[in-house]
Amino acid sequence: MKLELTRVLHGGSRLGVLKGLGRSGQQSVEVPGCLLYTHLGAVPHLTQETLHTLNKLPPVTQVTMSHIAEHCEVLEEYKEGFRKFSGLHDTVLYSSLHDPASQCPPGYTTNKTVSVWGSGGRIELTVQKFMDLQKHVQPDWYQSMADGETWQNGTSRKRIKKSVTRTLAHLDECLLLHQKSEELNGVEVFGVVEGGDILEERVHSASETAKRPVAGFCLDGLQTGAMTQDLRVELIRAVNKELPEDKPRLLHGVGRPDEVLACVEAGVDLFEGFFPFQVTERGCALCFNFDISPNPELAGRAPPAVLQEEVESGIAAEQHQHGNGNQDASSQMTLFEMDLKDKRYQDDFKPLVEGCGCYCCSNHQRAYVHHLLVTNEMLAGVLLMIHNTAHYLGFFSSLREAMAADKLSLLRSRMLGEIYLESSRNSLF
Amino acid sequence: MKLELTRVLHGGSRLGVLKGLGRSGQQSVEVPGCLLYTHLGAVPHLTQETLHTLNKLPPVTQVTMSHIAEHCEVLEEYKEGFRKFSGLHDTVLYSSLHDPASQCPPGYTTNKTVSVWGSGGRIELTVQKFMDLQKHVQPDWYQSMADGETWQNGTSRKRIKKSVTRTLAHLDECLLLHQKSEELNGVEVFGVVEGGDILEERVHSASETAKRPVAGFCLDGLQTGAMTQDLRVELIRAVNKELPEDKPRLLHGVGRPDEVLACVEAGVDLFEGFFPFQVTERGCALCFNFDISPNPELAGRAPPAVLQEEVESGIAAEQHQHGNGNQDASSQMTLFEMDLKDKRYQDDFKPLVEGCGCYCCSNHQRAYVHHLLVTNEMLAGVLLMIHNTAHYLGFFSSLREAMAADKLSLLRSRMLGEIYLESSRNSLF
Repeated sequence: MKLELTRVLHGGSRLGVLKGLGRSGQQSVEVPGCLLYTHLGAVPHLTQETLHTLNKLPPVTQVTMSHIAEHCEVLEEYKEGFRKFSGLHDTVLYSSLHDPASQCPPGYTTNKTVSVWGSGGRIELTVQKFMDLQKHVQPDWYQSMADGETWQNGTSRKRIKKSVTRTLAHLDECLLLHQKSEELNGVEVFGVVEGGDILEERVHSASETAKRPVAGFCLDGLQTGAMTQDLRVELIRAVNKELPEDKPRLLHGVGRPDEVLACVEAGVDLFEGFFPFQVTERGCALCFNFDISPNPELAGRAPPAVLQEEVESGIAAEQHQHGNGNQDASSQMTLFEMDLKDKRYQDDFKPLVEGCGCYCCSNHQRAYVHHLLVTNEMLAGVLLMIHNTAHYLGFFSSLREAMAADKLSLLRSRMLGEIYLESSRNSLF
Repeated sequence: MKLELTRVLHGGSRLGVLKGLGRSGQQSVEVPGCLLYTHLGAVPHLTQETLHTLNKLPPVTQVTMSHIAEHCEVLEEYKEGFRKFSGLHDTVLYSSLHDPASQCPPGYTTNKTVSVWGSGGRIELTVQKFMDLQKHVQPDWYQSMADGETWQNGTSRKRIKKSVTRTLAHLDECLLLHQKSEELNGVEVFGVVEGGDILEERVHSASETAKRPVAGFCLDGLQTGAMTQDLRVELIRAVNKELPEDKPRLLHGVGRPDEVLACVEAGVDLFEGFFPFQVTERGCALCFNFDISPNPELAGRAPPAVLQEEVESGIAAEQHQHGNGNQDASSQMTLFEMDLKDKRYQDDFKPLVEGCGCYCCSNHQRAYVHHLLVTNEMLAGVLLMIHNTAHYLGFFSSLREAMAADKLSLLRSRMLGEIYLESSRNSLF
């Protein structure tokens, strides 16, 4: 794994390519970018065939121990790894600990174990069991075991210190078992940076992790709901100063477009792609504008669903509401999407997003998807997942384009509706 | 619409092609055949794109008033018909009254109205409202309004007589409004034969319906659960004697393969294709053998999941249990499928059906689908619906092939496992 940066912008955002991925070393992912979020190796609702109708598909598929741990014995018997078991082919497989789209109940972490929650309940993992799982999964890259239980409101400094110490100890144990394992030869490990909301702990965790032979870093415990955006950015900037320039930084649990943008500006390279799934599960469609072409009147993208003041006051209110340890943030509708269950769409015969080329927008109208949703038809989830994934990948693509062309501020204002407001006075929008 | 019979077998089964379908009159469907079962125009779980990866797709899509009636106003506003509203293209659209896969609560039928149940509750239809709906739906063909409330245990002869009289009155009213309507010019109507389990009433209903200018006939109130298979076949034979040879006969509510076979032998041409959906909803996969090639050892199809004695005693038990008015029959697993939620499949690395060429069987194993099912992943429904639809369409194709080659009895014994038992002694099955 080798990170080639083509551009580092003032402020710290990084544009480049993470190369040398996969067993062949031939695969690569553009950064900033997101991983492909899956349940049991499948993007929820979608077959591989449907998925591959999308452009700009991330070359890295993320699978999580929460989904896999309970199938450990079957994978052991199967012997050929999780990629083949779940019908995946050419993708790079990244194995992480927790599902970013669902909250793990706190209170089950010990000095020697962490717990993940599958459909059958809690599974307690020691480092040994965690590493055995990796051997059966056969990923190309995995995160080391970590104690990330610091996101709750009012977690004490003592508890946060403990999480840093434990996570470093887990990393050392993982690396020891890794080096002894023939099966994991050539597989990469990411170290996990903890430290809750305390800057000194973050810095300590980062500098210690950076001393270990890891291929990159997971920034953990900074997810949406754990803290305000300002604090998150401040902590990320401090952490990144301790990390080597040439290794990638993957941020856990942040997916909302405005938060992604701010974290990219603080130097994050990779994100978990769970946000389109959350939007789909609440019956919504992503519709924010990410077009950075010069003439917004000609740009085919949808106008934002709301006006700029609404966006900004809405985001401020959300931050106020969810800034400290309220994990329900993830289940609430954001200002980047439209609620297709709303009665106003029952006779709206436009595509979800004008100009979007995805299968859903090319073939169906808002009214039809609305009717599928209100009658609980499973196809609604399929169609929304196609659109939301396509829209989100389009956003990341536009984000990289904006970085290359010095247009990050244009992207931000388009996303938040400023340019839309101006253009709407003169155009048909 | 024109039925061309190429073969009528001893006993009454009919092989042929129903031609002249659709607005262009260029489409056709082979009989015996099944219609494409949909919810709101979509095969449950599947996009049109996924659906079209299947071979031998029925050219006729069935939509039902139960799903559509509540969207009447939107369709009226939309003006371009349900086919376009639901993103369908070249298919022939057939509009029927009730959803064959879900039971309609009894007790809401009056002299002048029938009721359908949508997601928002009951909708009462007069003939006028029923015909207005047809105008907004713009199908190529529809069934006339009917009172089919005769399937319950112990329905009196008086009630059955009333259903026949009402249904004929509804037909006359529908035809009157149809002839006056410019929008329905060129659209075909099927008359509905009622009569419960009383032979004389069936004969009366059939002969009276046959006197009207209808394009074909729906045989209603004979669904699985309403009566024994023997009685159903006896009634169908009696009805068919009253119906003209050159018009198609569509049977409502029968989908189980052994029942389909018996009804084809009694002269039924068309079936509603809801059975694969019911199998999918209970987490099962169709796996019965329908291969009629000479050498069963070389035939790629799966062996039946159970032995012949089990099949026959099982079917007898089912008939005994559900023979009289037990509508729950439709939700129970049959002997033609395997329950993939069963723990025995958790480490079964074979495809659902060996030799099946569908997307699911080509890409996934029983163990993976089992894990998707037990973790409630939506993709399980998508994959099962693909396989079950492909398997069921393959069965109909094989059924026509068997009729053309005088192999109906071979098909029956293969389905029920007789040949399998013999071959299994000498082969690797």
